[in-house]
Amino acid sequence: MPQSASFNSFEVGYDVPALPGMDEIDIQTPCLVLDLDALERNIKKMGQYAKAHGMQHRAHAKMHKSVDVLKLQMELGGAIGACCQKVSEAEVFVRSGIQNVLVSNQVRDLAKIDRLARLPLLDAQVIVCVDDLANVGDLSAAAQRHNTTIECLVEIDCGAGRCGVKTSDEVLQIAKAISAADGLKFSGIQAYQGAMQHLDSYEQRKAKLDVAIAQVADAVKALEEGGLKPELVSGGGTGSYYFESNSGVYNELQCGSYAFMDADYGRIHDKDGKRIDDSEWENALFILTSVMSHAKPHLAVVDAGLKAQSVDSGLPIIYGRDDVKYIKCSDEHGVIDDPNGVLEINEKLRLVPGHCDPTCNVHDWYVGVRNGKVETLWPVSARGKAY
Amino acid sequence: MPQSASFNSFEVGYDVPALPGMDEIDIQTPCLVLDLDALERNIKKMGQYAKAHGMQHRAHAKMHKSVDVLKLQMELGGAIGACCQKVSEAEVFVRSGIQNVLVSNQVRDLAKIDRLARLPLLDAQVIVCVDDLANVGDLSAAAQRHNTTIECLVEIDCGAGRCGVKTSDEVLQIAKAISAADGLKFSGIQAYQGAMQHLDSYEQRKAKLDVAIAQVADAVKALEEGGLKPELVSGGGTGSYYFESNSGVYNELQCGSYAFMDADYGRIHDKDGKRIDDSEWENALFILTSVMSHAKPHLAVVDAGLKAQSVDSGLPIIYGRDDVKYIKCSDEHGVIDDPNGVLEINEKLRLVPGHCDPTCNVHDWYVGVRNGKVETLWPVSARGKAY
Repeated sequence: MPQSASFNSFEVGYDVPALPGMDEIDIQTPCLVLDLDALERNIKKMGQYAKAHGMQHRAHAKMHKSVDVLKLQMELGGAIGACCQKVSEAEVFVRSGIQNVLVSNQVRDLAKIDRLARLPLLDAQVIVCVDDLANVGDLSAAAQRHNTTIECLVEIDCGAGRCGVKTSDEVLQIAKAISAADGLKFSGIQAYQGAMQHLDSYEQRKAKLDVAIAQVADAVKALEEGGLKPELVSGGGTGSYYFESNSGVYNELQCGSYAFMDADYGRIHDKDGKRIDDSEWENALFILTSVMSHAKPHLAVVDAGLKAQSVDSGLPIIYGRDDVKYIKCSDEHGVIDDPNGVLEINEKLRLVPGHCDPTCNVHDWYVGVRNGKVETLWPVSARGKAY
Repeated sequence: MPQSASFNSFEVGYDVPALPGMDEIDIQTPCLVLDLDALERNIKKMGQYAKAHGMQHRAHAKMHKSVDVLKLQMELGGAIGACCQKVSEAEVFVRSGIQNVLVSNQVRDLAKIDRLARLPLLDAQVIVCVDDLANVGDLSAAAQRHNTTIECLVEIDCGAGRCGVKTSDEVLQIAKAISAADGLKFSGIQAYQGAMQHLDSYEQRKAKLDVAIAQVADAVKALEEGGLKPELVSGGGTGSYYFESNSGVYNELQCGSYAFMDADYGRIHDKDGKRIDDSEWENALFILTSVMSHAKPHLAVVDAGLKAQSVDSGLPIIYGRDDVKYIKCSDEHGVIDDPNGVLEINEKLRLVPGHCDPTCNVHDWYVGVRNGKVETLWPVSARGKAY
C-alpha cells in the first residue's frame, strides 16, 4: 500500500471504483456494475427481434449515456444509431463518431438550436422533434446559418401527456411547415407512449398502445394524403416494442432499458403472465454496495443511498437474496432488514435499481465484470449533459 | 455565433451552463443557480447563532459537496471545518486545504481505512465515527502503518435507526477500546438525530430531541465516570440545531441544509408556527429551468426532470409563482400545470428542489448569481465522490 504523504493524481477509490484486471471483490463501492454476459445477451436478443420484425432499432442512449454501450448495441444488436434527449448528449455521441442521432425531444433555446444545427458539420445525420409551428422558423434559420440540414419529426402525444400535438391536423400543419422550410427535412413522426411502459399487465399496456397506434395511423394517413409520407415512424419502449413492431405503422424502435433492466421494468408481466425480468430480459445493471454498519442485530446499513441511485420508481431489490431486504434509503445509506442477522461487515450486495436512467446519471463509471473479474471500465460519457 | 465545423474543447452549453459576466437570462438550463446574497445571509446568520450560543459549527459539506461553499461557511460563518460522509469526499476537502474534516460515518473497507489514515499526512485533523468494536483494530493498524493519528467519535443512534449504538454501556466500551488503541484518539460522541429533522411542528421535533439529548447526556455521564470525558459532542441539523445548542450537552453543530434550503425543509414550522423558509432561512439554491414545450394550452413542459434533481422528498416548488405548479417529473421533463396558459416558450423558472443534497449531487456546477448577472461558477467539487 502507498506510503507517501501526497496522493497520486489518479487513484482507485478516488477517481475510479476499480481497474480492469481486479477481482470483483476489490471493487470500491458504491458503484455501477455491468454483468457483461447478460448485457451482451440482452443486446443480441433485441437486435434479433427487431431484425425478425423488419424494424429499425435506434437505441435510446439517454438511459445509459455511454458511448461504449451504444457501440455494443450497434455492433452486436444492429442498432442504427442513438436517440437522446438533450443537445449536449447528442454532442457527446456525435463527437464520439456516432453518425445518426435523434434528439427525441424539443429544442427551443436559440443557443441550443445553434449547437444542434452545427452537429451535421461533424458528419452526422441529426434529427429533432417538433411540436410547435413557432419552432420551425428558428430551426430553419440555424440550419441555413450553418449550411446544414436538420431532419425533423413531428411529435405526437399519443398518451404520455407531455410534449407533442394531439391531432392529425396539427401534425400535418407542422409537417407542411417543416417541408417548406429551407435547411429542414420532414422525416416523419415521433410517437412514444411513455406513460404506459410500466403498467403491470400486458393487456393494460396493449389497450393503451391500441389507442396510440390508431392515433398514429390516422396521422400517417393524413400525411400521405397531404403528399408527405413519413419516412420514419419512431417510438416503442421496453414495455411496448412488440405492439409497435406488429402495428404495421411504426418502422423504428427506440428501446433503451431492455439492455440494463431495472426493478420497475422487471415487475411488469408479459402476455403469459410472467415477469419480464424472468422471461424477456436479464438484469445486467447493478449497484454494488457494501455493508458498513450492523450495530443493531436485525438491521444492516449499506453504503448506497440517494447519491448512488434514484428511488423515484421505488427502492432497489437485493439481487438473488430473499433473506434480506432494502427497506429505507437516505442520502448515503441504505437500511437493510436482516431478520436473521446474516450479513457481515464489508459483505457486498448487488442491488437492482428501481429506475435505471436516473441511477446511471449519478455515476461516473460502469465497471464491466465477467467471471468475477473486472474486464472493463466505461465512462458514463454523457453524465451531466443535461443542457 | 461560431461558424466552424468543429467544436471547441470548452464550450458554454456543453461543459458549463454559464460563464461569469453573463446575464442570468443567457444561462443554459437546467442547472443549479445560487442566489449569492441569500447564501451569504444564511451563512452569516448561522455563524452568529452558533457564536452567540457558544457552539462550534462544523458545516456538513455532504450537502453541497463544494469547496467554495465550505470556504464561504468558514470565512463568513466561522465554521471550523467540514463534515462529510465518505472518505473520497474527505479527500476532496483535505486536498483543497481544509484542515479539519469529520467523516460523520463508519469506514469499514480496508482500502478506504488506509486512505483515511493517510489524510493526516496532508496536514489535516481527521475524525471518523465508530459503532463497532471490531472496527477499532483496523483503524488502529492503518494509523500505525502511516504513523498518523485518526480521531474517533463513538456514534450513538439517538433515534435515526441507522448507524450507531444504542446504550451508554456500548458507547463506553467502544470509547475505551479507541482510547487504548495505538494511532487512535478518542475525541467524543457523534449523535445526529436525522429522522426528526423534517417533522412538521416544533413540538414534534422537540419531543424527539428531548429523548435524544437525554440519551446523549447519559452516555456523556458514563464516559466521564469512566475517565473518558468527550471533547466533542457533535450533531444537530437545520431542523434541530436550537435544541442541541440549548442542551448543555452538545458543543458542536453539523448543520448543512440551512445554507441552501429546499422545499422539504422549507415547509417545517418554527416555534411560532411559521414556515422556516419564511422565518429562518432563505432559499438560496434553485434549479433554473426553461419551458420547452407548450403544445397543450394548460400544460407546459420544462427541461428539468429526474436527471436535474432528486424527488425523494417531493416535487420541486416553482419559486415566487402560485399561478403555475410543477405536477409531474420524468427523466428529462417536468410537467407544469398552467391553467391560464401564461407560460411562454423559453421562459425561465426557478425551482426550489424537494431535497437539496441529492439534487446538488447530479450537477457539475453552481452558477452564482447576483443582481441578474452571473458572478461566479463553482464546481460541485465532490460530485461523484461516493466511495
